[in-house]
Amino acid sequence: MKFHTEYLWFNTTKRREYIRITDQVRTELHKTKIRDGMVLVSAMHITAGVFVNDHESGFMSDLDQLLERLAPLGAEYKHHQTGEDNGDAHLKNILVHHQVVIPVTNGDLDLGPWQEIFYAEFDGRRRKRLVIKIMGE
Amino acid sequence: MKFHTEYLWFNTTKRREYIRITDQVRTELHKTKIRDGMVLVSAMHITAGVFVNDHESGFMSDLDQLLERLAPLGAEYKHHQTGEDNGDAHLKNILVHHQVVIPVTNGDLDLGPWQEIFYAEFDGRRRKRLVIKIMGE
Amino acid sequence: MKFHTEYLWFNTTKRREYIRITDQVRTELHKTKIRDGMVLVSAMHITAGVFVNDHESGFMSDLDQLLERLAPLGAEYKHHQTGEDNGDAHLKNILVHHQVVIPVTNGDLDLGPWQEIFYAEFDGRRRKRLVIKIMGE
Repeated sequence: MKFHTEYLWFNTTKRREYIRITDQVRTELHKTKIRDGMVLVSAMHITAGVFVNDHESGFMSDLDQLLERLAPLGAEYKHHQTGEDNGDAHLKNILVHHQVVIPVTNGDLDLGPWQEIFYAEFDGRRRKRLVIKIMGE
Repeated sequence: MKFHTEYLWFNTTKRREYIRITDQVRTELHKTKIRDGMVLVSAMHITAGVFVNDHESGFMSDLDQLLERLAPLGAEYKHHQTGEDNGDAHLKNILVHHQVVIPVTNGDLDLGPWQEIFYAEFDGRRRKRLVIKIMGE
Repeated sequence: MKFHTEYLWFNTTKRREYIRITDQVRTELHKTKIRDGMVLVSAMHITAGVFVNDHESGFMSDLDQLLERLAPLGAEYKHHQTGEDNGDAHLKNILVHHQVVIPVTNGDLDLGPWQEIFYAEFDGRRRKRLVIKIMGE
């Protein structure tokens, strides 16, 4: 069994951004020479997500609108009584989920033709990271 | 370590359908003779989901209504400027999540008494698939 | 490869509760002496969830309000025609997701500084459980 761990760092210019990371995840996988296994990609913050979907700007905008509709920035959250202003970002993290597991087959990410991996930043403009954990043979 | 990979294909007659796949997943597991490990069940499309819940038609209808309420078919999505008409299905994929991991214990799926695995089709009437990746000993 | 399986039981006094379980998960991991791998933490019921977020009571209240807004207790659900009254809890399970996978690095849970693991009870006041499945070396 082989294991490989890597961390990707982000420091977005906007509060919310959706960043394609498929290539970085694939690069880490290829370093390992693992042919069969699983890759966990998981945000290490509670105000960010990781998801798989379409690399299409219209969809990103639709997703952002949905999340803003369900958990709007600037609404009155109890969490803000701690002095924080990112209650919306915590809820967006829950709705999107903070991680995906990508199967590895024949030494590559076993994704469908349109599936791309994204880091979803909901409270950016500061250094944040995710972990890639690869496990296989 | 053993690995096993299988793909399940679907071609639904309706645009949205929720299909129980517990038996197919269990059949793949039993082929491997794996006693302990994990099974990843993951949609390979960005307009479909995989979830675990109750095999009860009322719940399926409630779930479908919730998803239609949050991301209705036929609403104006930016994604439709690409010529697509399935913006709702992309968002439903995010809300439901596109994968589950089932633990394997004593050679069987370690599910609770009411837990069943479902493929959730949000934009069907064409051939689509999911991947089952089993890893264990 | 080592595998370790444990079940945590809950019997909440309230219908909905959010219970921090990071310490119990870490205790199970340390029993195994596994240095590298993955920990699956998965609810075994269809009316409960597992998530990673902030150990902060304001956020818990915000999350509960969001879930009540999207899938309110006591609304008319088709699932209730079976005699059940927990249709909301099934939908909350879907929205929160019922499981997380925690990477293991250097013999510990590889979580970010604010990440804590929670069991989310949506229909409690009875004995329910989750499974912890650890896999690694």
